[in-house]
Amino acid sequence: MKVAVLGTGGGARAHIAKLRELGHEVHVGTRDPKATLARTEPDMMGTPPFKDFLARHPGVQLHPFGAAAAASDGLVISGIDGHNAVAALSAIADELAGKTLIDYAVPFIYQHTPEHPWPTPWGIMPMLDPCDSDSLGEQIQRALPRTKVVKSFVTQEQTTVVDPTSVADGDHTMFVAGEDPDAKQQATDLLKSYGWSDVLDLGPLVAARGMEMYAHMHSAIGFGLGQRFGGHFGIKVVR
Amino acid sequence: MKVAVLGTGGGARAHIAKLRELGHEVHVGTRDPKATLARTEPDMMGTPPFKDFLARHPGVQLHPFGAAAAASDGLVISGIDGHNAVAALSAIADELAGKTLIDYAVPFIYQHTPEHPWPTPWGIMPMLDPCDSDSLGEQIQRALPRTKVVKSFVTQEQTTVVDPTSVADGDHTMFVAGEDPDAKQQATDLLKSYGWSDVLDLGPLVAARGMEMYAHMHSAIGFGLGQRFGGHFGIKVVR
Repeated sequence: MKVAVLGTGGGARAHIAKLRELGHEVHVGTRDPKATLARTEPDMMGTPPFKDFLARHPGVQLHPFGAAAAASDGLVISGIDGHNAVAALSAIADELAGKTLIDYAVPFIYQHTPEHPWPTPWGIMPMLDPCDSDSLGEQIQRALPRTKVVKSFVTQEQTTVVDPTSVADGDHTMFVAGEDPDAKQQATDLLKSYGWSDVLDLGPLVAARGMEMYAHMHSAIGFGLGQRFGGHFGIKVVR
Repeated sequence: MKVAVLGTGGGARAHIAKLRELGHEVHVGTRDPKATLARTEPDMMGTPPFKDFLARHPGVQLHPFGAAAAASDGLVISGIDGHNAVAALSAIADELAGKTLIDYAVPFIYQHTPEHPWPTPWGIMPMLDPCDSDSLGEQIQRALPRTKVVKSFVTQEQTTVVDPTSVADGDHTMFVAGEDPDAKQQATDLLKSYGWSDVLDLGPLVAARGMEMYAHMHSAIGFGLGQRFGGHFGIKVVR
């Protein structure tokens, strides 16, 4: 397949590397490719410059967001920061039309507002917007009515999403939600190619609320296990 | 032990019956015992009158909330409806002083307000208040500084909490959070006596946010499994 991955952070890189390993053609989208390639220092999360990653992953093509989406033959994975996702994706609505968009962002608020003081200590977790009465997945679907939005991957570190057997031999559960059954099947097929054996369809996109709000529980479980950043565990639905 | 269970709904009844089975003395608290005993019809959730339950569970003692809490020798389980819990528990702060209070309520909003129209279709899930920046568990702890509050049981149907081996032979995970290690140990010991083998301490009470917000995910998983009301499944943290 020709898959577009929007974003160049750690989560996006996990998917890019895995998709290449699986033999797909990968088109990476970024806001400003020149700026992305000009960076020579790790960012504040310690992520090395994308140029270094590209050098180790030959054949990966870097584009502006819209050109990356246009190069996809059907599947687009969005790793755009939750708070910026609706605006960035709306700007390339034409290029995304007719395609399946898998959104895995958590709409954490990193900005300082009177209602949401920053910095939030990580132990207390950043707050979410939207939350409870709406979700980022639903917002994106409303903004992109011609695109089939699937919420998935969000209940897990992306390094584990692309390598599920690294935890408990892969004996845990991944979730999908969305309005379009074919799009959810595409996402499920991708997950199976990543190594997932248990992919549970939670139904319509309203279930994205639960998936996004699970971020707090995911953080708490990680803390409970003594894994402060980048948790390495899974949850298995037993029934 | 002499255990108090506050509330007479389905969740409370699950604990009352199990505690009796385990040989504990159980003191049940309700707002108005006369009114509770006067009811002769199932409520709108289909729960039979409490009087019928009492007839099948001899030795269970029904009191007003405060008297039930006072009769406990250390452990109180609160199944008071989330939206009413802070007011009801604050009114019996003296009787709860020095005791461990396990709160398992989800602060669902059932009231109709302009911000939260009712009825919310269950598929879309009732909304939560507090949510994200606070939790009911933390609110209760702030209201009862002399009580050791533990949030637990909330990620599961109470019928499964008291009978964990009914799902996957008990191979799933229960969570506790709170400020007091001894109180969390009491809750953990109770859970082990119920049959839980994997009880994960998520740390301080701030983790109650994740546990309460998980309610949406719990609903979504139940729907995904085709279990509309009263889901019968568990989640296992694999690591």
